[in-house]
Amino acid sequence: MGYQEQTIEGRNAVIEAYRSGKAIDKIYIQDGCQDGPIMTIKREAKKHDTLVKYVTRERLDQMSETGRHQGVIAVAGAYEYAQLDDILAAAREKDEPLFLFLLDNIEDPHNLGAIIRTANLAGAHGVIIPKNRAVGLTATVARTSAGALNYTPVARVTNLAKTIEELKKEGIWFVCADMGGTRMYELDLKGPIGLVIGNEGEGVGRLVREKCDMVASIPMKGDIDSLNASVAAGVLAYEIVRQRLQ
Amino acid sequence: MGYQEQTIEGRNAVIEAYRSGKAIDKIYIQDGCQDGPIMTIKREAKKHDTLVKYVTRERLDQMSETGRHQGVIAVAGAYEYAQLDDILAAAREKDEPLFLFLLDNIEDPHNLGAIIRTANLAGAHGVIIPKNRAVGLTATVARTSAGALNYTPVARVTNLAKTIEELKKEGIWFVCADMGGTRMYELDLKGPIGLVIGNEGEGVGRLVREKCDMVASIPMKGDIDSLNASVAAGVLAYEIVRQRLQ
Repeated sequence: MGYQEQTIEGRNAVIEAYRSGKAIDKIYIQDGCQDGPIMTIKREAKKHDTLVKYVTRERLDQMSETGRHQGVIAVAGAYEYAQLDDILAAAREKDEPLFLFLLDNIEDPHNLGAIIRTANLAGAHGVIIPKNRAVGLTATVARTSAGALNYTPVARVTNLAKTIEELKKEGIWFVCADMGGTRMYELDLKGPIGLVIGNEGEGVGRLVREKCDMVASIPMKGDIDSLNASVAAGVLAYEIVRQRLQ
Repeated sequence: MGYQEQTIEGRNAVIEAYRSGKAIDKIYIQDGCQDGPIMTIKREAKKHDTLVKYVTRERLDQMSETGRHQGVIAVAGAYEYAQLDDILAAAREKDEPLFLFLLDNIEDPHNLGAIIRTANLAGAHGVIIPKNRAVGLTATVARTSAGALNYTPVARVTNLAKTIEELKKEGIWFVCADMGGTRMYELDLKGPIGLVIGNEGEGVGRLVREKCDMVASIPMKGDIDSLNASVAAGVLAYEIVRQRLQ
């Protein structure tokens, strides 16, 4: 995964960056600045767990590219998405049966990060997420992935159901996690596979579910409805790992 | 699990409650209040995801027990901890092989909530957490547990290693998750069992690890070190479920 840094200078630009959900890694604030917009930026920084460094005006002047930093410069990170074709090519090169994670609108960045972490450790070749609604690769995702985002490629597609249809032509089977499916131990998950994980609240969407070859259920003994999305992804991914190790 | 509500009245009391980490479920603020302390409370409410309701002064007067609400009343929830003996007795009554989760200093409330959720669905009889350092049953834990906290009892003990030692006398076996252990598929996890999950950063503590009968490892193929703690708990718990279903 490529990673590019970008600096954002000036009060309104930084506030706007936070409002738009941009992943800000670090903020440099001029020593002694206490006015309203700077306090707003500090609050946002606290809320988003951004590292804040207090520096002299001279230091900011040196860092500034525009010469108009107004006492604040933010460093934003942007992870680059991979191309689906590259993920497939890399798996072919390794000569391993393909193992993909497809996330149908995961909204919580902590879940997305934890799932990318699981994908890495379970030996998956990549993660596919949809462009709309779902959370993208923010700083929180990067942090929760515990470094996995640097190794496991994430591709973004416009239409997950259509992507599944296309990948089926390559001989990949798709299994989604949902209630009312076949108990996961009874499914054959050894071949080239795409594991589809649904949204936190609504599960797998109908269109995506219809494209799947298998619906796997995790045995549930308790009183509540479902596992946390990243835990369910982990349990299913490791059932795939177990079957492949046999 | 018993659940008790408590109201906190007055600006400083509410601010103090947030500062002390109290789990605040809901806040009633008088319509039109805009001063400094109320803004601080609103920020804290936003940060902690507390539900805020704006009500008239008359409504607050009615709700107030002290008559000195100063424009704000908070409703805090407190979950009651279970007694370890009650957990053991409940399992005996169900005539099932005991299945406990023991958490060695889980610090992230989202992880604790997700693990309680997993414990419930995997059919565990209870969760044991240590009194010090670890996160307790806050509102975030309750929310992330998706209701599981109402069903799965959580007991707090002073010394986890000592508790393990005592429970071993009852014929319970303990397995902890750690690197360098035996691959989990090769362990016999069918009997009465306590699953020990380590801290997010440091894993299982040495003293606790030494008390465990088995060290289980989850097969890892990737580039990073470890799964998220709640994912690891889920993967191991479901290996226990799988073995028990055979």
